[in-house]
Amino acid sequence: MELDIIYKPIQEELDKVEDRLRSVKKVDSSYLSTLLDHSLQSNGKRIRPALTLLSGKFYDYNLDYLLPMATAVELMHTATLVHDDAIDNSLIRRGRPTINKLWGEEKAVLLGDYLFAEAGAFTATTKNLRVIKHFADTLKTISSGELNQAFNAFNLEQSRPQYLQRVAKKTAALFSLATESGAVLSQAPEESIQILIEYGHNLGIAFQIVDDILDFIGSEEELGKPIGSDLAQGTLTLPAILILEHYPEENPVKRLFSSQDEQDNIKLAIELVRNSPITQECYQVASDYCAKACHNLNLLPDNASRQSFIELADYIINRKR
Amino acid sequence: MELDIIYKPIQEELDKVEDRLRSVKKVDSSYLSTLLDHSLQSNGKRIRPALTLLSGKFYDYNLDYLLPMATAVELMHTATLVHDDAIDNSLIRRGRPTINKLWGEEKAVLLGDYLFAEAGAFTATTKNLRVIKHFADTLKTISSGELNQAFNAFNLEQSRPQYLQRVAKKTAALFSLATESGAVLSQAPEESIQILIEYGHNLGIAFQIVDDILDFIGSEEELGKPIGSDLAQGTLTLPAILILEHYPEENPVKRLFSSQDEQDNIKLAIELVRNSPITQECYQVASDYCAKACHNLNLLPDNASRQSFIELADYIINRKR
Repeated sequence: MELDIIYKPIQEELDKVEDRLRSVKKVDSSYLSTLLDHSLQSNGKRIRPALTLLSGKFYDYNLDYLLPMATAVELMHTATLVHDDAIDNSLIRRGRPTINKLWGEEKAVLLGDYLFAEAGAFTATTKNLRVIKHFADTLKTISSGELNQAFNAFNLEQSRPQYLQRVAKKTAALFSLATESGAVLSQAPEESIQILIEYGHNLGIAFQIVDDILDFIGSEEELGKPIGSDLAQGTLTLPAILILEHYPEENPVKRLFSSQDEQDNIKLAIELVRNSPITQECYQVASDYCAKACHNLNLLPDNASRQSFIELADYIINRKR
Repeated sequence: MELDIIYKPIQEELDKVEDRLRSVKKVDSSYLSTLLDHSLQSNGKRIRPALTLLSGKFYDYNLDYLLPMATAVELMHTATLVHDDAIDNSLIRRGRPTINKLWGEEKAVLLGDYLFAEAGAFTATTKNLRVIKHFADTLKTISSGELNQAFNAFNLEQSRPQYLQRVAKKTAALFSLATESGAVLSQAPEESIQILIEYGHNLGIAFQIVDDILDFIGSEEELGKPIGSDLAQGTLTLPAILILEHYPEENPVKRLFSSQDEQDNIKLAIELVRNSPITQECYQVASDYCAKACHNLNLLPDNASRQSFIELADYIINRKR
C-alpha cells in the first residue's frame, strides 16, 4: 500500500505541515534560506509528522498545537540527517547531493544546529511542558545513541541487544516522541498515551532494522543513496551481526573490520546477506517489532487512524526506500 | 577587579550551578561521561550563569527556576564552543586539547548536540514558556550568526555594521538571554526586563569585541589558545576591519585574504594592530558598548547586583583572557 493512501485521514493536515516547513525557509539571510530550502525539500516520507497527526486524531484534535508539533518532529529528523551526513561525509541523500557535499561540513553542522533550534521553537508553541521536556530529552537520547555508534565503529564485539538498544535510542526515540506528543496534545488518557508510545517505539525499531536491511539488499536508485554505507562507516547492524553469528570463524565483516580490502569485503558481505537466509531472518525480527507495535492498538478507539497505523506497520516492512 | 569579587553576591548560587553541571556528567554511558567531563571542566569564566543569577537578584528570587536556567545558558555556551572548535579544527581551548582534537570531529558534533539538548532540558524545568521560546530562538540566532560568519570567510567586503550585526547574533544574543531569563523568572516588571536585556546585549557586544582584540594582542599563555586564529579562519573582526580602513591600498589582511603567505601576513597584521592606534580605537568601541550597557542600570533597584553589573562591564574591558 502506498503512503498517500495510508495518510488519507490526515492528508489535509500534512499539507499544512508542508506549508509550515516552507515558512521555515523564509528568513532574512539568503545563505541560510538556500540551505534550508535544500534540506527541507518535500521528498521525504514524512512518517514522523504523520505519526503525530494520526495519534492526535484519536482524541481532542487541536491543530493549533498538533501542526507545530508535527512540524517540529520533521525538523528534528532533518537536523539529525544533516549532522549524520556531515559526520559520515555522505555525499548523496534521497538522490540529491548533501549539504556537506555542496557547502562543506562547517555549514552542515551550523545548519543542523539551526534546525534543532527551529524544531525547539515549534515545540515551544505547543505550550505543553510535558511535550517540551520530552522533546529535549529525545534529542539527548538520539545524540547519545549516535555517540554510542561512533564509539563502537569497527568494533566486532557488539551483541544483538546492544544493537537494539542503539536503534531504540537513535531512531525509535523520535518515533515515540511523535506519537506521544500527538496523544498528549489531544488530551488522550494516560493509558492510551502509553499504547501510542509503545506503538511509536516498536515501529521505530522495525523501521531502523528495515533501513539496515536495505543498506544491504536495496536498490541504490530507489534508496537515492549508495548501499553498503553502514559497513563502510564501521557500523555493525543486524545483517552484519547475523553474518558474524552464522559464520563465526571467517567472514567478510571480520576481514573488513580488521582493515582488509574495504570494497571487496563490503561487496562480499552484501552478497552473503542477499544469498542466505539472513535477509529473511532480519525481516522476521522487524516484523516481530511491527506486530508488537500493533498489539494493543485494539484498545484504542476504532477509527481511520487506527487503520492507518496498521497499514503503516505493513508499509514499513515492505518499503523499498 | 577579579571575577570572584564581582561574583560575591551570587557565589553560593554559582557553586550550586557547578553542582548541576557536575550532575550532567553522571550518565550511563562511560564514553559520553568522559566527553562531558572534559567539556564541562570548571575553568570557564561562567559569565553567562552569573548574568542570569545577578539579574534574578533584583526581584523575586526563586532558585528552583534560576539555577536550572543559569545552568542552561552555560551548557548552551559550552555546546557552541564544542561545535566551533570542531568546525574550525581548533586544537586547544582554555589551555587544554579540544574534544575534536582528542576524540575527532564526529564525536564533537554529537557531543555539542547532546549539550544543546541538555540545555533545553534544563530550560524546560523553569516551566516558563516565554523563557523556553526565547531559548530556542536564541539558538536560531546564534547559529545563523555563525553561518553568516562562515559564508563570509575570506571576504574583504565586510563593513563595521555587518561585523556588529554578526557579533550581536553570535555572542550578544546569549548574553541577553541570560539576563532576560533571570529577570523574567524573578517576576521583574517589563520595564526592568528591557533594561536587563539591553545590558546583556551591549555587554555581549563589548565582550566579543574584546575577544577579537585579544586574538591580536593577547598572550597565548593567558588566553590558553593560539592568537591570530580569526585571521587564519578568514574571519574579519574589528581590528582587521580597522587595518583595512587605515591602510586601504595595501595591507597584510588584504594579502592574506587573497591567499598569500598565511603565516607571514598574520604575523604582520598582529604587529600592525599592536603598534598602531587600532588597539586603542577598538577598545574605545568596546568601552562605548559597556557605557551603553550600564546607562539605564540606575533605574533598577540599588543593590549588590547593580554594583556587580557595573564592575563586570569594567572587567570585560580589562580582562586578559
